[in-house]
Amino acid sequence: MSSPVITCKAAVAWGPGEPLVLEEVEVDPPKEMEIRVKVVCTSICRSDVSQWESKAQPDLFPRIFGHEASGIVESIGQGVTDFEVGDHVLTVFIGECKSCRHCISGKSNMCQKLGLERKGVMHTDQKTRFTIKGKPVYHYCAVSSFSEYTVVHSGCAIKISPSASMDRICLLSCGVSAGLGAAWRVADISKGSTVAIFGLGTVGLSVAQGAKLRGASRIIGVDTNPEKYEKGKAFGITEFINPDECSEPIQQIIKRITDGGADYSFECVGDTGVVSTALQSCCDGWGLTVTLGVPKVKPEVGAHYALLLSGRTLKGTLFGGWKPKSDLPSLVDKYMRKEIEVDGLVTHDMPFSRINEALNLMRESKCLRCVIHMSK
Amino acid sequence: MSSPVITCKAAVAWGPGEPLVLEEVEVDPPKEMEIRVKVVCTSICRSDVSQWESKAQPDLFPRIFGHEASGIVESIGQGVTDFEVGDHVLTVFIGECKSCRHCISGKSNMCQKLGLERKGVMHTDQKTRFTIKGKPVYHYCAVSSFSEYTVVHSGCAIKISPSASMDRICLLSCGVSAGLGAAWRVADISKGSTVAIFGLGTVGLSVAQGAKLRGASRIIGVDTNPEKYEKGKAFGITEFINPDECSEPIQQIIKRITDGGADYSFECVGDTGVVSTALQSCCDGWGLTVTLGVPKVKPEVGAHYALLLSGRTLKGTLFGGWKPKSDLPSLVDKYMRKEIEVDGLVTHDMPFSRINEALNLMRESKCLRCVIHMSK
Repeated sequence: MSSPVITCKAAVAWGPGEPLVLEEVEVDPPKEMEIRVKVVCTSICRSDVSQWESKAQPDLFPRIFGHEASGIVESIGQGVTDFEVGDHVLTVFIGECKSCRHCISGKSNMCQKLGLERKGVMHTDQKTRFTIKGKPVYHYCAVSSFSEYTVVHSGCAIKISPSASMDRICLLSCGVSAGLGAAWRVADISKGSTVAIFGLGTVGLSVAQGAKLRGASRIIGVDTNPEKYEKGKAFGITEFINPDECSEPIQQIIKRITDGGADYSFECVGDTGVVSTALQSCCDGWGLTVTLGVPKVKPEVGAHYALLLSGRTLKGTLFGGWKPKSDLPSLVDKYMRKEIEVDGLVTHDMPFSRINEALNLMRESKCLRCVIHMSK
Repeated sequence: MSSPVITCKAAVAWGPGEPLVLEEVEVDPPKEMEIRVKVVCTSICRSDVSQWESKAQPDLFPRIFGHEASGIVESIGQGVTDFEVGDHVLTVFIGECKSCRHCISGKSNMCQKLGLERKGVMHTDQKTRFTIKGKPVYHYCAVSSFSEYTVVHSGCAIKISPSASMDRICLLSCGVSAGLGAAWRVADISKGSTVAIFGLGTVGLSVAQGAKLRGASRIIGVDTNPEKYEKGKAFGITEFINPDECSEPIQQIIKRITDGGADYSFECVGDTGVVSTALQSCCDGWGLTVTLGVPKVKPEVGAHYALLLSGRTLKGTLFGGWKPKSDLPSLVDKYMRKEIEVDGLVTHDMPFSRINEALNLMRESKCLRCVIHMSK
C-alpha cells in the first residue's frame, strides 16, 4: 500500500547564502493526510531568497527552499480523499485544515494547524521527509519545491485543472494571489479611488492589477528602479515616483498630488520604514495602509499616533487574506478565463540546473518572476 | 443688530500647569456663522489637563481650557440659521461644516474646515474672541468652556432638547461619545465577541458600555486602579486585570485566558506602549486594536510587523468616528430614552469656584468626570 522512498535531485542549501547544490536526496513516502508531488515548475519568491540568506536559523541547514510551485500528485498518504494520483496541484505556504477556529471563522486564513511553518519540518510530526544518506534535510514553509519531488500536507495543496499552464499558474501559489487579495479582500478597493503602491515587484504589480480591475482612478507606483514604470503601466500604474530622483519626501509628494493623501497605500517592499511612509501617504479619515512585505531588518513598524487618531488604519496580510483551499480555485479560474494577467510577470524561464542564477537575479532585483522548469 | 461685548468670569491659565485664576474677561460678539453660548455645565476631560500641563506651546497662554460642555445660545452671528437665541446646545471639539470632502464622504469626521484646532484661535479668522484688558486670551479646541460665556463656530455646536439634563448631557460632548463610537462605529463589535479595554476612565468605561450593548460575551478591563473593577462592572466589565498585581505580561495573560487573544482591544490610556500591548492582546486573523488615547510622552506607536502580517488591524479614532452634527443628536436621544448610561460616570459636581480642585482630581486620576456648574 505504502509508496517507496524516492531518490531524486533537489537544490540543497548547505548554509545561509551558500550557492545551492543539486544533490541526490531521498524523499519519504507521504504520511497520513499528506501527498507526494512531482514538482513541474517552481517560481522564485523574494522570501525564498531572504530566508536562504538569513543567518537567523543556522541549525535548519541543509535545507530545501521553494514554495511557489505547480506539480502532479505522485502518491497519496492514508486518509487523503481530496486528491488522486495524477492530479495537478499548486502548493501553498499556509494551509487550510477547515476545522480550526480560524478556518471555520470566515474571516481569517491563519489556520492554526497548517499555518506558516518556521521550523523546517512538517506540521504533523515535526520531522522532515527529506534525507541525504539518512541525515535530515530541512523543509521550507512545509513545501520545499526546489526538489523534483516533495511531500506536502494535503491541506497545503490545491487541485487545479489539468489544462492550466503549469509554468505560469505556479505564480498564483504565492505572489500574484497575495497582491490581488490585498487589493480585493483586505483593502476592498472601491471604484474611482486613489492607490499608492510602494515596491513594484510581482506582489506590488499584482496589487496594481487588482486596483485597476476594481476601477481605481489613480494608481501611483513607487520604486527605485526606473524600468518599473513601463512594466507597471501594463498592470495599471498611472503615475510613477522614483524616490532616488526626488528631493522631497515621498509622502509629501503623494499628499500634494492627491490633495491630502491616497485612499489606500500598500507596502510591498519589506521595509518597516516604508510602512511608515505608506501610512503617511494615505489620507485622514479613511486612509488605509496594507503591509504585505516581510522586512529583512528592523522588524518594528513605527507610526506617529496622530496618523492613527486622524482616522487611518494599518493592517497586514499574509497571502492576501485568501483561504488557500477555499479561495484559490476561483483565482485559477479567473486566470484561465483570462480575467487576470499572470504571464507578463514571468521574466525568465530556466531549467532546474540554473536555479542559482535565478536566485541571484531575485537577490539583485533583476527579475520579476523566474520560473524553474524542473524537468528541463 | 450686533450683540455687545460681554464681560464675565473665566478660569484663565496664565502658564503651563499654573492654577487657573478666575478673571474678568471680555467676550466678543459672535462673528459670521458663530454663536455665543452661556455655558451651563462643563465637565473636565483628561485632554484639558494634559494640554494645560503641556509645555509644548508656551506662547498660547493666557488660555481658557475646557471643551466638554452644555450651554444656552446667548446670541448668534450673521448667517447662522440652525440656532436661535435660547437653544440648548452641546459644544464639540471637532466640528462639521457639511461641505468639505470629508464631511460629504460619509466615512470621515475629519472636517477640513472645523477640524481639531491647535493654535488657540478661532478657525475662521485665526483670532481670539477673548481678551483681558484688550490682550488676547487663547482658546482651546475652539471651544474654551471654562468661561461663563464663550464663542464657538455654529458647526461646533449641537442643538439638544431643552429637557435634557444639562449637568449630565455635557459628557456626551466628548468622552462618552468617543468611547461608544469606538465600540460601535469604529470597531463595530459583534455579539458574543471578546473585548479587552486598557484604561477604565470615562472613555474606557464607555467602550465597555458600547461592547455590552452589542452583546460582547467577555469584556476584560485593564487598569492599575483596583477600584475600577467595581465601577466597571456597572458598565459591562466581566473580568479585571491590574497590571500592578501581575508578574506575567498583560498580553500573555489575555492571550491565555481568551485562547489566542481578544477579538477587539482598545487603548484608552494615552500611552503608545499600551497600544503595542493592546495589539499583542488581540488575536491573529481578525484582531482589531482601536487607539483612542492621546499620549503625553513618546508619540510613536511601535508594532512588530508579524502582528500585522498575521491579520491584525490597528486603527485610531477621534470622537469615536461620529460626525458631530449629524450623529450626536441620536446619542442624546438614546440618553433621554435611558438606553445609555451617563450619570454613573459623574463622580463629582462642583461650583465654578472649585475648578482647580476638579483639575487636580483628574490629574491624580481620582475621579471619572467632575462636572462644573458655572452658575453655582
